[in-house]
Amino acid sequence: MLAQNASAWAAAIGAAEREALKGHRGANPLVGAVILAPGGEVVASGFHRGAGHPHAEVEAISALGPTWRERAGELTLVVTLEPCRLTGRTGPCVRAVLEAGLGAVVYAAADPTPNGGGGAELARAGVSVRGGVDPASAGRLNPRWSRAKAAGRPFVTAHLAQSLDAKVADAAGRGRWISGPEAREHSHAVRARVGTIVVGTGTVLADDPALTVRLGEEPERAVPVVIAGASELPATLGLARRAAAGADVVRVRDHDPHVVLAACGSNHVLLEGGPTLLAAFIEADLVDELFLYQAPLFLGPGVDSTAALSPRPVGAPWRWAHDPAGDEPDRLGRDLLLHLSPAA
Amino acid sequence: MLAQNASAWAAAIGAAEREALKGHRGANPLVGAVILAPGGEVVASGFHRGAGHPHAEVEAISALGPTWRERAGELTLVVTLEPCRLTGRTGPCVRAVLEAGLGAVVYAAADPTPNGGGGAELARAGVSVRGGVDPASAGRLNPRWSRAKAAGRPFVTAHLAQSLDAKVADAAGRGRWISGPEAREHSHAVRARVGTIVVGTGTVLADDPALTVRLGEEPERAVPVVIAGASELPATLGLARRAAAGADVVRVRDHDPHVVLAACGSNHVLLEGGPTLLAAFIEADLVDELFLYQAPLFLGPGVDSTAALSPRPVGAPWRWAHDPAGDEPDRLGRDLLLHLSPAA
Repeated sequence: MLAQNASAWAAAIGAAEREALKGHRGANPLVGAVILAPGGEVVASGFHRGAGHPHAEVEAISALGPTWRERAGELTLVVTLEPCRLTGRTGPCVRAVLEAGLGAVVYAAADPTPNGGGGAELARAGVSVRGGVDPASAGRLNPRWSRAKAAGRPFVTAHLAQSLDAKVADAAGRGRWISGPEAREHSHAVRARVGTIVVGTGTVLADDPALTVRLGEEPERAVPVVIAGASELPATLGLARRAAAGADVVRVRDHDPHVVLAACGSNHVLLEGGPTLLAAFIEADLVDELFLYQAPLFLGPGVDSTAALSPRPVGAPWRWAHDPAGDEPDRLGRDLLLHLSPAA
Repeated sequence: MLAQNASAWAAAIGAAEREALKGHRGANPLVGAVILAPGGEVVASGFHRGAGHPHAEVEAISALGPTWRERAGELTLVVTLEPCRLTGRTGPCVRAVLEAGLGAVVYAAADPTPNGGGGAELARAGVSVRGGVDPASAGRLNPRWSRAKAAGRPFVTAHLAQSLDAKVADAAGRGRWISGPEAREHSHAVRARVGTIVVGTGTVLADDPALTVRLGEEPERAVPVVIAGASELPATLGLARRAAAGADVVRVRDHDPHVVLAACGSNHVLLEGGPTLLAAFIEADLVDELFLYQAPLFLGPGVDSTAALSPRPVGAPWRWAHDPAGDEPDRLGRDLLLHLSPAA
């Protein structure tokens, strides 16, 4: 088992954090894990690849060679976040640790969500556990995720397709299609990751969007929607029909982001637009990540992508940053995908 | 020597074009060359890396191994553009071919500029020459360059630093500094490649720019400037002082791009801005490439980067394209560099 001294843990947690940074940034927190031999050397590692993929602990355990599996009781799992104890899509990490027979678990930060408590569960089962040895790790790896959790609000993803002159629609209000099919496919993959979609009444009136998820061969799927804004919506619109038919479309007659988020019954919200709502969320510092589809075209006068944003001086703008470790700016067909987060 | 049949040439020109595409896109045309053994296999290749670098022919000849140098008379140089005959910064390619003793030269497209005529010169010197076997190659590789040459006008590069909401300045008109130091350094490297800088009177009044080239340890260098626009400029401004002191700053009291370009005494012009001039050049289809420095920030209401552009419907916008083979979208410090050209 790992000699229990702080500098050895710090080095191992550093290694686990480097693993974590290989993962997909965004609503799913980055988590990394390493498994240490009694002498302290890393014998396996893993990271969380995103929603629907195994957790870092499971990945690391899967990577163990047969010799070390036999000697699992001598090994220490070092992970950036407390192992989960609930059975989600991927099974609880607590069970994976116990089934593998690992002797010890060290984790940097406790899990503040209902998934927390895995450390205590492992200790009760006889595993040697040292938890919360570096609580700041969560903030380093997942600052926006940590902040959202601490505030008791959903993580907010926004996406936006705009021209080079930052228009989401032309002078006649038409925005379909500024971006190409590859960008639209990516936007469906983003929708597939969230629990709730938020859209403003202006966008509903202008585009009559379905806001469903259409991915490859999978059947089209509806995602719960919150419509924000005061405008009346004709009953003929698709979302108005969905609202009348069932409970998965909710109206909030307000643009206040806090009010809107309170109406979202999930921990991950996608802001579809339009410009008024996006500006309100940016000003409230309530956009955690932004996928910006930049189409290589100019439209001239039209609808600005963040029309309602209040002015900032050039020395103190609304500062954002390209995701330093996650999705690189990438071509999506003719368009460019930018993955941005508010700068710290 | 290469068996003189069309399909062998087509394959060799394809290989030379693939070489060419490794080069730096922009004002310097992409040119590539391969050298073929008597059996048709490629024994050396080269491409033009940009201004100040050796031409593709010279690169390919330099890459020849000693055995093939001895047998140069049996080799065929296949190049996408007619070898040049003038002594520029890099020496004429005609001389390099003759000094190497190559037996044959095949080129895809004749050079329509004063550098042309190299093919005839080689033939007079006893080289077996087949020229113009694929004139369309120039258009495939360098469509904008070919078009500018054909129109007898300079190649026009524009650069632009803007926010995510496409502002070049805040509501108070301040644009310094939207982009970071790495982007500004790149913009100096772009200035270093051109013969003339064009700037509007609005930008001169707002920023009092020096428009010099400052690159690393090199001494600061002035580039000839054309100031376009009707506004009077106070004699205290830097460019007004340069205009009074010498002949390298010219005033054109007009925004018409054709009038402005006619006043530029070089074959490569850099459009520095501002928005009025940029929009006029875009509308006239007289921007051949655009370096866009995209800073990850929002400014809210301010100065639009292409404010004077006339409206286009979303189905028929001013279409551009990310350079398909040249500079990839790339991080420059915190900013992103986009290299764009008008779509065909």
